[in-house]
Amino acid sequence: MDLENKNVNALRMLAVDMIENANSGHPGIALGSAPILYALYSKHLNVVPKDDKNILRDRFVMSAGHGSSIYYATLHAFGYGISMDDLKSFRKAGAITPGHPEYGLTPGVDATTGPLGQGVAMAVGMAIGQRVMGSKFNKPDITLFDNYTYALVGEGCLMEGVSYEALSLAGSLKLNKLIILYDCNKITLDGNLDSVCDMDIMAYMNSLGFNTIEVHDGNNIEAISDAISLAKKCTDRPSFIKINTHIGHGSVHEDSHKAHGSVLGADNVALLREKLGVNTQPFDLGADVSRDLVFLRKRFASTEKLFKDRLKAYKKAYSGDYKLLTSILNGDVNIGKLQSDIIGNGLAGRDMGGLIINALAEDNTSLMTLSADLFSSTKAMIGSSGYTNINFGNRNLKCGIREFAMGAISNGLALYGGIIPIQSTFMVFSDYLKPALRLTSMMKNRVISVFTHDSIAVGEDGATHQSCEQLWSLRAIPNTRVYRPANFEEAKACMVSALQFDGSSVMALSRQKLAEYPSSEKDAAMGGYIISKEDRRNLDGIIIATGSEVSIALEAKNLLKEQGYNIRVVSMPCVEVFEEQTSQYKKELLPQEVKSIFAIEAGSTIGWHRYVGRSGKCFGVDDFGMSAKPQDIYNKFGLNAENISKEIVKVIKANK
Amino acid sequence: MDLENKNVNALRMLAVDMIENANSGHPGIALGSAPILYALYSKHLNVVPKDDKNILRDRFVMSAGHGSSIYYATLHAFGYGISMDDLKSFRKAGAITPGHPEYGLTPGVDATTGPLGQGVAMAVGMAIGQRVMGSKFNKPDITLFDNYTYALVGEGCLMEGVSYEALSLAGSLKLNKLIILYDCNKITLDGNLDSVCDMDIMAYMNSLGFNTIEVHDGNNIEAISDAISLAKKCTDRPSFIKINTHIGHGSVHEDSHKAHGSVLGADNVALLREKLGVNTQPFDLGADVSRDLVFLRKRFASTEKLFKDRLKAYKKAYSGDYKLLTSILNGDVNIGKLQSDIIGNGLAGRDMGGLIINALAEDNTSLMTLSADLFSSTKAMIGSSGYTNINFGNRNLKCGIREFAMGAISNGLALYGGIIPIQSTFMVFSDYLKPALRLTSMMKNRVISVFTHDSIAVGEDGATHQSCEQLWSLRAIPNTRVYRPANFEEAKACMVSALQFDGSSVMALSRQKLAEYPSSEKDAAMGGYIISKEDRRNLDGIIIATGSEVSIALEAKNLLKEQGYNIRVVSMPCVEVFEEQTSQYKKELLPQEVKSIFAIEAGSTIGWHRYVGRSGKCFGVDDFGMSAKPQDIYNKFGLNAENISKEIVKVIKANK
Repeated sequence: MDLENKNVNALRMLAVDMIENANSGHPGIALGSAPILYALYSKHLNVVPKDDKNILRDRFVMSAGHGSSIYYATLHAFGYGISMDDLKSFRKAGAITPGHPEYGLTPGVDATTGPLGQGVAMAVGMAIGQRVMGSKFNKPDITLFDNYTYALVGEGCLMEGVSYEALSLAGSLKLNKLIILYDCNKITLDGNLDSVCDMDIMAYMNSLGFNTIEVHDGNNIEAISDAISLAKKCTDRPSFIKINTHIGHGSVHEDSHKAHGSVLGADNVALLREKLGVNTQPFDLGADVSRDLVFLRKRFASTEKLFKDRLKAYKKAYSGDYKLLTSILNGDVNIGKLQSDIIGNGLAGRDMGGLIINALAEDNTSLMTLSADLFSSTKAMIGSSGYTNINFGNRNLKCGIREFAMGAISNGLALYGGIIPIQSTFMVFSDYLKPALRLTSMMKNRVISVFTHDSIAVGEDGATHQSCEQLWSLRAIPNTRVYRPANFEEAKACMVSALQFDGSSVMALSRQKLAEYPSSEKDAAMGGYIISKEDRRNLDGIIIATGSEVSIALEAKNLLKEQGYNIRVVSMPCVEVFEEQTSQYKKELLPQEVKSIFAIEAGSTIGWHRYVGRSGKCFGVDDFGMSAKPQDIYNKFGLNAENISKEIVKVIKANK
Repeated sequence: MDLENKNVNALRMLAVDMIENANSGHPGIALGSAPILYALYSKHLNVVPKDDKNILRDRFVMSAGHGSSIYYATLHAFGYGISMDDLKSFRKAGAITPGHPEYGLTPGVDATTGPLGQGVAMAVGMAIGQRVMGSKFNKPDITLFDNYTYALVGEGCLMEGVSYEALSLAGSLKLNKLIILYDCNKITLDGNLDSVCDMDIMAYMNSLGFNTIEVHDGNNIEAISDAISLAKKCTDRPSFIKINTHIGHGSVHEDSHKAHGSVLGADNVALLREKLGVNTQPFDLGADVSRDLVFLRKRFASTEKLFKDRLKAYKKAYSGDYKLLTSILNGDVNIGKLQSDIIGNGLAGRDMGGLIINALAEDNTSLMTLSADLFSSTKAMIGSSGYTNINFGNRNLKCGIREFAMGAISNGLALYGGIIPIQSTFMVFSDYLKPALRLTSMMKNRVISVFTHDSIAVGEDGATHQSCEQLWSLRAIPNTRVYRPANFEEAKACMVSALQFDGSSVMALSRQKLAEYPSSEKDAAMGGYIISKEDRRNLDGIIIATGSEVSIALEAKNLLKEQGYNIRVVSMPCVEVFEEQTSQYKKELLPQEVKSIFAIEAGSTIGWHRYVGRSGKCFGVDDFGMSAKPQDIYNKFGLNAENISKEIVKVIKANK
C-alpha cells in the first residue's frame, strides 16, 4: 500500500475509533468519503490551519455533517490544533468535537452543518461572497479575493429542495469558483436509493448550468485530485464532481445502509482494522503516517506567506480600501445618517425599512440586500445600486422564488465575512426559510430578515398570505430578535439594534401605513417602554402592543379614559431586547401588583401571557385570516378600540 | 376569431373585471394562462361539476394560486355553481372567491394554493393517491381509480425547492397519470427570469424522469389540447408540458413584470377589451359565449354517467370492497385493537408509536405511513407491509430526504380521499415541512405527523438535531394539535384523538425510554389531568409537565413532599385538547387562586405562562442544546428533580 492510502486508512480508523469511543456516530460516510477529504486537504485546499479564519482562504463546507468524525480526524491530521484528546472527547459534554460540525466551536469548521442541504446552499453563499468582495476590493494588480469554495455533499443534501434552489441560482450566476464534491454511495438510512431517487444526477446538474466530472473509483486519491484540478480549469461555470464511493468501506456493512448510523462494535472494528491494514492501537496514527502528515502540512506555510504578502502589498498600495476592509471585517457599522433628517413618519412599515436601509447604504458598504422575488413589495433594496445578478459590484441579489436558499445564502455571505445580508420576503413565508434562520441564530451570524406584510392586514391576498403564528414562532428561536416597530422612531431604533446584533434579527414591517404619534428612539431602544403614560397613580391596567396595533392601544386608552379608567400603554417593539433590561426597569414598566395587563398584536397570542399572566387578556389572531379588506379582518378578530376597551373593562371589573 | 378563442377572451376579460372590481389581484397570469385552463376544462378534465368531490374525478391543482381570478372564471364557465355575484365578490369578506384558492370554500377547488411550489407537490401526492387506491380497489374487470392529476405551475412553483423534491420522487415512482402544465412566461414579480434562473428546464425535467412536451404558442388551444393528449399516451412516466405564454396577454403590460400583481386601471382595461375583441359589458360573457359554454358542459353529463355506472357495477360485483371504500371515504376509524392487550409500558415514545400504528394497521386500511428517510429511527411504519415505492399496494412510502415534499404529498393523499397519512421525521426537522403543516391545518386535512427525538434527549447528535422551539411553534399553528404523551396510556389516547381530528396532528415522541407509572387512557383523553394528586387540601403548588418530563415532575413532587409541601402534578399531553374542556374542568385542574404553578418541558418555555402566569416559573430549554449524553444536557438546563424542587421552594416562599 502506498503512503497516501496508508494515511487515508489511518484516518478512517481514527474516525471509527472516535465513534466507538463515543458509542455513537456515523461510520458509513467516514469510511466512504475519507479519500475525498484527504485529496482536498493534502493537495488543493489553500488554507492556513493555525489562522483558520484567514479571510483569503479557500472555504470548505462539510454539507454532509454526519461525516463529522472523518472531518475532525482530517482537521487533526492537517494541523488545525485539534488534539487527540479532543478526538477522544468526540460527542461528549464540553468538547470542541460535537456530533455534527458547529461553526465557532471547532477550528477549521467553516459552517454549522447537519440539517441536510443547507451546507451546500451556504457554500453557494460563500461563493457569491467571494465574487461580491472581489468586486469591491480586487484591483487590476492585486486579486485579493479569488478563493475556491468546496462542499462535500451526499445523496441527502442533493435530495433536499434547498440544494436545488441554491445550485440552480449558482448555475445562473456562473459561480466558477464553486466546486461540489458529491460522495455518491447510493445508500441512505432507509436503504437503497433507486426506488426513492432514480434521477440522472449528471444530466440534472448539467441542466442547472454546472460543469460535471465523474470519478469512477472513489478510493483513487489521484483521480479525485485530478478531477478537482479539472474543475478549477473550468472558468465559466461551477463544477460538480461525482465521486463513486462505498459507504462503510472495508467494514462488514460496506455498501449497506446498516453502515450509516450505527456503531460497528469491537469485533467488527478489529476486522476492519485488519482489512485496512492499520496495525496501530486505537487513537494512534503511527509514526509513518504522523511523519508524512507533518510533511504534507508544509504546503500551508507557503499559503500563509502568499496570503500575508498579498495583504501587505494591498495595504501598501490601497491603504484606504485596506482600512475599509479591516473595518467591515471587524463588523463596524456607521449609523450616522440615521441621526440626520430623514423623515419617515406616517409611512408604511415597509417603506420606513426601505428608507432606513437606503440612508445607511452609502456609509455601510457591507450592507447587501437579498430578496426571494419580492424586492418590489418589501422595498428592502438599495435603490442606488442595481442587481448583483447582473454585476457582483451591485448590491441587491435577486434570489428568485427560493426563500430557503436565500436564508442559507445569507448565512454563507455572513460566514464569508465583510457582508451584512438583509434578506426579505413576506412574513408568512418566513416559514419557508425557518430552518436557515435557526442556523443563523446558532452560528451567531449577523443576518437581518425584513419580513413585511406582517399580519392579517395583508388583506385581499387571503389566509395563505397572512401571518399569524409566525411572530411567536420566530421569537421562540434562541438568539433571535424579532423587532416590530410601531412608528418611524421605533423603526430606526430597531434597525440600529439589529445591525449590531450577532444573531438572527427579524424586522416585522407592515404593508399598510402606520399611524403617527410621538415617541423617542432612545425609549424604543429599551425594547419596551411607556408610549402613553397613565394620568395618575393607581393604575387600572396596562396595555402592551406592538407595531400597527399600538395605535389601537392608544385609541382604546382614550375610550377607557372617557369612562374614568387610568391606563398605561406600553409599546414593545422587541421582546428580546426588553428582556435584557434590568429587572428593576422591567418591574417598573409592568409592576407585579397590576393584575389587569393586556396585550394587543395582530398575530398568535401564544407568548404574551408571560406579561399578561392569568388575570389579564390577550387580543390577537389565534386562527387563520381571511381574504377581505384589512379593516373587515381586524373587526372579525375584535381587533378594534371599541371592542377591546369593552373587554378590558370586563377584566378590570373582574379583577377588583 | 373562432368561437374557442372568443370564449377564452371572454373569460380573460371576466377575470380582469373581477380584479378591477376587487381593486386587487394578478392580471398577468389570468391573461396568459387562460387558454391552458380552457383547453383542460373544455376537452380533457373528467369531472362532475355539480358533484365536485366525486372520488373518481380527475384532479386539478392550480399550483400558481395567484391565478385565482381566471380559475374562478373558468369554474364559473364550466358549471361549478359559482355565480356571477360570487365573481363580483372576488377577494371580499365572506365570499367563496378568496384572493388565493382555498379548499373547502370554493366548489371545484381541489387544494388550497398560493404558497408557491406546494400545489404541484400536492398534485404528486394526489397522483400517488390514485395508485394507492387503485392498488387496493381496482379489479381486473373494473378499474375504479384511474384518474389523471393535472397541475398548472409557473416559474415560481418550479423554482421552489419543494417542487423539485416532489417531482423527483414522482419521476422515480413513474407516476404516468400525472401531467404538469407549465405556464412559461419567463417573467416574475421582480423582472426577467434569465439572470435569476437560467436553467434548461426541459433537460431538468428529463433528468427527473419526466416525458417532456413543448407547446410553442400558448394561445393555440388546439396545440395545448394535442399536447395533453400526447401526454396521456405516455404510460411509463409522468409528463411535463411547457407552454410558452405571454404574461398580461393583450394588455399594455404584456410580457412585462408590471402585469404580475397590479390592477390595470379603467383606461387600460378599456384598451384591453378592444384588443381582445370583447364587446360585452363587464361581468357579461355575452350570449354566444354563454350558449357555447352550456354546450361544452354536456361532456360532463356523460362523465357523470360513466362514473355512476362504474361505481354501481363495482358495488354489485364487489360489495365488501365497496362497503370498505365507503367507510374509509367517510373517515371511519376502528380503534378496537388498542383496547386489546398490546403492552407498551416503559418503551421509548417512538416504539410506543410504532406499536400503536401496527396494532391499528390491520383494521384501518386507510392508514399509510411516509417518512423522509427515517423509518428506521422513527419506527412509524407498518411492519407487516413493504414499501409503496416497490408496490403501490404496500403501505410505507419512502419519501427520500425530502421532508417538505413529504408534508405536501401527505396533504395530497388526504385530499385525494380514503387515505390517512402518517408521516415521520425528527422533531427538529419539522421546520423543513412547516409550510406544508400550515396548509394541512388550513385545509382541515387529517394528517398525523410523528415527530420523534422530541427534545435535547437526542443527546450526542448535538444542537442541530435537538428540538427546543419546535413544540410551541407547532402549537402556535391554528387548527393543530400537538400531542406529547408521557406513557403508554397517554400515547394510546393521543393516537385515538389524532385519528379523529380533522386537522394537523403532531405526535411528539421521545427517542429514549419513558418511565412507567399508572394513569388512565380516559384521563389522558382530557388533554390535561391530575396524574398525581396532592396529599391534602390547601395546595402549595401545581407542576404541569409533558412527555418525558412528567417523571421529573413526579420525582420533584416526592422531594418536595419530604419537605412538607403539598403538590399536585398535572400531565398535559395535549394543550389544545385541554383547552377544549369545560371552563369548570379547567378551573378545577388549575385553580385561579393557586399562585405557584410550574411547567416542565424540555423545550422552549414560550407558551407555558398561559398556565403558569406571572407568579409561577417555567423550566425548559430556552437555548440551543449541545452534543453530550442526554443526562448531561438535562443537568445543564437544570432539568432534574433536585434543581427544580429547590427552585420551586423559592417561588412558593416568595408567593407566601
